[in-house]
Amino acid sequence: MIHFADHELSRDAFLGGRLHLYQPKAGYRAGVDPVLLAAAVPARPGQSVLELGCGAGAAIFCLGARVADLALTGVELQPAYAELARRNAAESGLPFEIFCADLGALPAALRQRQFDHVIANPPYFRPGAHSRAVDAGRATALSETETPLALWVAVAAKRLAPKGYLHMIQRVDRLPEMLAACEGRLGAPEVLPLAARAGRAPELVILRARKGGRAAFRLHAATILHDGERHLEDGESYCPEIIDILRGGAGLSWPL
Amino acid sequence: MIHFADHELSRDAFLGGRLHLYQPKAGYRAGVDPVLLAAAVPARPGQSVLELGCGAGAAIFCLGARVADLALTGVELQPAYAELARRNAAESGLPFEIFCADLGALPAALRQRQFDHVIANPPYFRPGAHSRAVDAGRATALSETETPLALWVAVAAKRLAPKGYLHMIQRVDRLPEMLAACEGRLGAPEVLPLAARAGRAPELVILRARKGGRAAFRLHAATILHDGERHLEDGESYCPEIIDILRGGAGLSWPL
Repeated sequence: MIHFADHELSRDAFLGGRLHLYQPKAGYRAGVDPVLLAAAVPARPGQSVLELGCGAGAAIFCLGARVADLALTGVELQPAYAELARRNAAESGLPFEIFCADLGALPAALRQRQFDHVIANPPYFRPGAHSRAVDAGRATALSETETPLALWVAVAAKRLAPKGYLHMIQRVDRLPEMLAACEGRLGAPEVLPLAARAGRAPELVILRARKGGRAAFRLHAATILHDGERHLEDGESYCPEIIDILRGGAGLSWPL
Repeated sequence: MIHFADHELSRDAFLGGRLHLYQPKAGYRAGVDPVLLAAAVPARPGQSVLELGCGAGAAIFCLGARVADLALTGVELQPAYAELARRNAAESGLPFEIFCADLGALPAALRQRQFDHVIANPPYFRPGAHSRAVDAGRATALSETETPLALWVAVAAKRLAPKGYLHMIQRVDRLPEMLAACEGRLGAPEVLPLAARAGRAPELVILRARKGGRAAFRLHAATILHDGERHLEDGESYCPEIIDILRGGAGLSWPL
């Protein structure tokens, strides 16, 4: 698909209405994950941010909505999503440039640049490990037919300026691959597990790693998403810190 | 040092007095870590267990005291500790054989055997990362002058029978190395973080991995060692489950 028609799109509020994004009704739709990823990035005004596989831009625009004066750049393989990201940037008034390209073959203009931050929310499912998706765009966004996870880390490492940070959100079962991919490329890895409830195994992790970092690996205490024992009503059981992020546009505090 | 004199030893109770071990007063002395390691192993009566770097034997004899009819084997580099392990086995009435050898050069008799379980509590400090220890035996027990961590995993993988389990306790900052060392050798890695208090970053992890395992990586919710906000009195603040392990000889329940 090269283009989404208007009737295929919804306009959705993020960060309590601080941001609105067009997303395909039937394709890949941002959940809380890209919002948490954006909240985890300690970007400062004036810095540059590259998102790999930005889709319609939920993560990078959430970051741009929280931190002023960022230079935002995205890479997206699928033309229809790249176009949507461009449209979302224009509607949001955020400065943004997009490269429609495969991570394995970035254009020379991008390969000559370095960024203070790289962020990524790579596809969660391995090739063949999920049932056939109805929509091809969603399938590409959720699978790795095109791009192995290690390549995401390698490309991020190349595009980071010295001392620059990678933040990546991913399913916890991919953690060994993520850490292996950092080896020799990025240092000072830190892992923030995200668990649905206290005492439950984390389902997601946010990996932070630094170009040229030398500090030892750190595994932080899990950030708990929901209060109480089980999910009673959609969205209403989020912990106060998570509500501040999702609805208040707050940053996520990394443990010291 | 080739031999500990009696006046250099203390006789210490483990598992609420179910086990007594001689340990050097000034050398490497077992804390709770080998006891937790032993508790984490799902060994069944009749199975075989190899401990790499067994020291005076705290981990393997705690396991032998909990599970009946195990065939216990240890490898220990330092002759004085190997002798101590032999003495502790005899005093405890546990069947045990010890090989005094470097992990990198196991004797042929051991290289021909496979075990249902391999356990290890490798040294916690990297060469050069700690101050000079007073006692050379303790220094060897705490450093990696002789043996890089990856070799512990490689040797364990070689000595495991098909479907056999490795359990290893280690500082959390070494987790990337442990996981990398498992790659291609052991599968189905699971990590149980051990945190001093709820909400604190874990300081230790127990890694479980299986020979021929194919399941995805799992990161479990942390096991919390102490109740309450801070350590009020030595040992008395342990959580009930931990007290059951340390004083009652119970096993450690892995999350399902």
